[in-house]
Amino acid sequence: MIDIDRLSPVPLFRQIYERIRAAIAVGQLRPGERLPSARSLAAQLGAARGTVEAAFGMLAGEGWIVPRGAAGTIVAPRLGPAPLAAPRPRIDLPAADPMPRPFRMGLPALDAFPRGLWARLVAREARALGFSYPDPAGDHGLREAIAAYLAVSRGIVCLPGQIVVTAGYQGALSLIARAMIEPGTPVWIEDPGYHLTRLGLAAAGARLVPVPVDAEGMRVEAAPEPARFAFVTPSHQAPLGVPLSLPRRLALLSWAEANDAAIVEDDYDGEFHYAGRPLPALKSLDRGDVVLYAGSFSKVLFPGLRLGYLVVPARLVGRFAEAAMRFTAGCGALEQRVVARFMSEGHFARHLKRMRGLYAARRAALATALADVFGGGLRIELQSGGMHLLARTDAPDTELVALAEQHRLAPAALSAHAVAADCGSGLLLSFTNIPETQATAMARALHQAIGHHL
Amino acid sequence: MIDIDRLSPVPLFRQIYERIRAAIAVGQLRPGERLPSARSLAAQLGAARGTVEAAFGMLAGEGWIVPRGAAGTIVAPRLGPAPLAAPRPRIDLPAADPMPRPFRMGLPALDAFPRGLWARLVAREARALGFSYPDPAGDHGLREAIAAYLAVSRGIVCLPGQIVVTAGYQGALSLIARAMIEPGTPVWIEDPGYHLTRLGLAAAGARLVPVPVDAEGMRVEAAPEPARFAFVTPSHQAPLGVPLSLPRRLALLSWAEANDAAIVEDDYDGEFHYAGRPLPALKSLDRGDVVLYAGSFSKVLFPGLRLGYLVVPARLVGRFAEAAMRFTAGCGALEQRVVARFMSEGHFARHLKRMRGLYAARRAALATALADVFGGGLRIELQSGGMHLLARTDAPDTELVALAEQHRLAPAALSAHAVAADCGSGLLLSFTNIPETQATAMARALHQAIGHHL
Repeated sequence: MIDIDRLSPVPLFRQIYERIRAAIAVGQLRPGERLPSARSLAAQLGAARGTVEAAFGMLAGEGWIVPRGAAGTIVAPRLGPAPLAAPRPRIDLPAADPMPRPFRMGLPALDAFPRGLWARLVAREARALGFSYPDPAGDHGLREAIAAYLAVSRGIVCLPGQIVVTAGYQGALSLIARAMIEPGTPVWIEDPGYHLTRLGLAAAGARLVPVPVDAEGMRVEAAPEPARFAFVTPSHQAPLGVPLSLPRRLALLSWAEANDAAIVEDDYDGEFHYAGRPLPALKSLDRGDVVLYAGSFSKVLFPGLRLGYLVVPARLVGRFAEAAMRFTAGCGALEQRVVARFMSEGHFARHLKRMRGLYAARRAALATALADVFGGGLRIELQSGGMHLLARTDAPDTELVALAEQHRLAPAALSAHAVAADCGSGLLLSFTNIPETQATAMARALHQAIGHHL
Repeated sequence: MIDIDRLSPVPLFRQIYERIRAAIAVGQLRPGERLPSARSLAAQLGAARGTVEAAFGMLAGEGWIVPRGAAGTIVAPRLGPAPLAAPRPRIDLPAADPMPRPFRMGLPALDAFPRGLWARLVAREARALGFSYPDPAGDHGLREAIAAYLAVSRGIVCLPGQIVVTAGYQGALSLIARAMIEPGTPVWIEDPGYHLTRLGLAAAGARLVPVPVDAEGMRVEAAPEPARFAFVTPSHQAPLGVPLSLPRRLALLSWAEANDAAIVEDDYDGEFHYAGRPLPALKSLDRGDVVLYAGSFSKVLFPGLRLGYLVVPARLVGRFAEAAMRFTAGCGALEQRVVARFMSEGHFARHLKRMRGLYAARRAALATALADVFGGGLRIELQSGGMHLLARTDAPDTELVALAEQHRLAPAALSAHAVAADCGSGLLLSFTNIPETQATAMARALHQAIGHHL
């Protein structure tokens, strides 16, 4: 009845939720109709009962289904205008979740964000807010603050006018696609690599050319065919965590200059480096002005902001300003001003410094705990930076992830990041939201979930 | 030296600003080089001196150029890291503008927005904010509030799950393009029509099929060829202001049902109707579930929010949820919650009611003043709703707009909205930001700028 895709990056509970919601929406499930129990549906799907219950919880919270206790669960009898008084979902929806599921990738430490300070800045800026259309390329004060930060922290010298504020990394990707990528344009992508880059480029009609990644990052010389763009994660390759080596950086820049190509540097977590100072950005070596640098506030502040930015080469300033005006009309004014204030008042630099210390401690604690609990069953690859550990294993990683999900743990599968080449099996384990005091307990919980399968 | 495009929707001062900025960025103008004076550049371009000065003001504010008094203006000698202490631009940039230029289209009354109330709600929500990734399809409370509002005010019955919150209308357009439009897909658009719809669809690779518009809206029966989509503005056609008549509405719906096509209803200003109640949305007649309804908060709240929404047919819920997850990762969490609160506490309905009264008064005052001042030189077409007047004229409207711009007035040219067919000459004059007490003065200012040319 429900088809689910275990290789999808979409969590299982969400897939189940979407399928049932769609079935009700199209009338395949009728008002008043009884649903199978969570237990029996879980058995049918080979999923954990908790996974199905999470999906049911979301559906009930949105008023699609009604739990009737011992009488089972039915499709809501009256699907009319919004059930305004419906109870809000109680399960750990991403947006409302105080602590995310253990090991969940891509989130900064949600327990360590200075909420009170942020709320005060928001309140202050809200009183002085302009209400008209914002500058499509971004709030000017924010662009100034970003330029100053990049010069000091990432070795990038640019003018505020070269910065375009975007709706996170995905907004930056969309804007690049709109401004520069024609259908059929060949683009080098990392293999393995970040799936949202792949999906965004594919949707723009780009021809994806996977280039293998080894311990020094993208193997520029091994690219199977020419391209007009290269999308890379030089600070810590996503997902392997290795930095792009200096020879490879220079080779990539030479390639772009010689071939009139452009490089997009996705610096999603470049700030989080634990051995010495963060590496300067690839963009800092860019004498030919061939690099577009994409930064995001999702990891260094919080993802609910949906703010990021692009540094574009001087020759492309006009083209990107035009694209922003035509295709986005810019980002919300209020939070741009709050981020600008957070940066210009020095809070940002302090927050980054605190997070580097916190993450170094959480990373070490989790790595130690995993080694203690698993012995050789998981081989931890401790890279010099980033927000997750890579634990190699010989067991099939997608099966391990499915097992972990049944225990409400959220590691990701390395193999799901492969494009054309096999990158082996491994678990990606984020440590950012696991306090040191919980590291051993979480390692044990993971062992309980998957240990018998290694 | 500088090429400007008088037909572009981009204001002249902004075009000049962009061109000079690009010339400096690419090194065509070198550090320390002297610029022509505003007076002589204005003469070269046939623009007003004030227009050039506005561009210079922005450039100086961003640190690209340095005014040296009697010694003229030079390109900044040192273009290094961000000039953090640079003075902020003092000219009326859209984002910071307390009152926009007279007649400027597309803005709600910025002087009548309840700023204090808004700031209080923002401050309250900021303290309770979740920091993780928001639901890509939108904050659940906001979707509930929108569904309830649509049922009461626009005659649309839908579930919160059918609503996707977007980054304004342009975000909705992008999402539709990503989810549904393949390169080459034929799409009916209104002729004349809204240029951003045209640009967004063209960028998505759609084949645009202009369909003529008359006094009853889109002439469905006059479409020159079949299509898979129709993009329409049924409440008040943009730019002509006429509502789509009931027979045309039914014809359009029948067409879509018979041809397995979809209609996108852009209801940008449907709330502002001055003769009786607002017309129900086209979507309210949609028995076949073929209409995607696009609403925006830019006109009913304020554009700096960058929030809008789509109501999608039940069968497309899953596809749009997937597209939102892949391509946008959602909108900022904070302001979604503020809007939800503004709606659920009743402020939204009160604000709309107030604005309908205010706009009716401002519209009547401006129409009267224009008739008094211009006599028959401008023929006012007073439609039943909307946020602007259409003033027909026999003089070429783009020339009138250029003249008005020299007096810092911002009417728009009707002819710039034409696609394939000639729609005649006329000025689009927004009344939303012209208080009744200023209507006569503004009509006179416009007459002074263009009267001799009629």
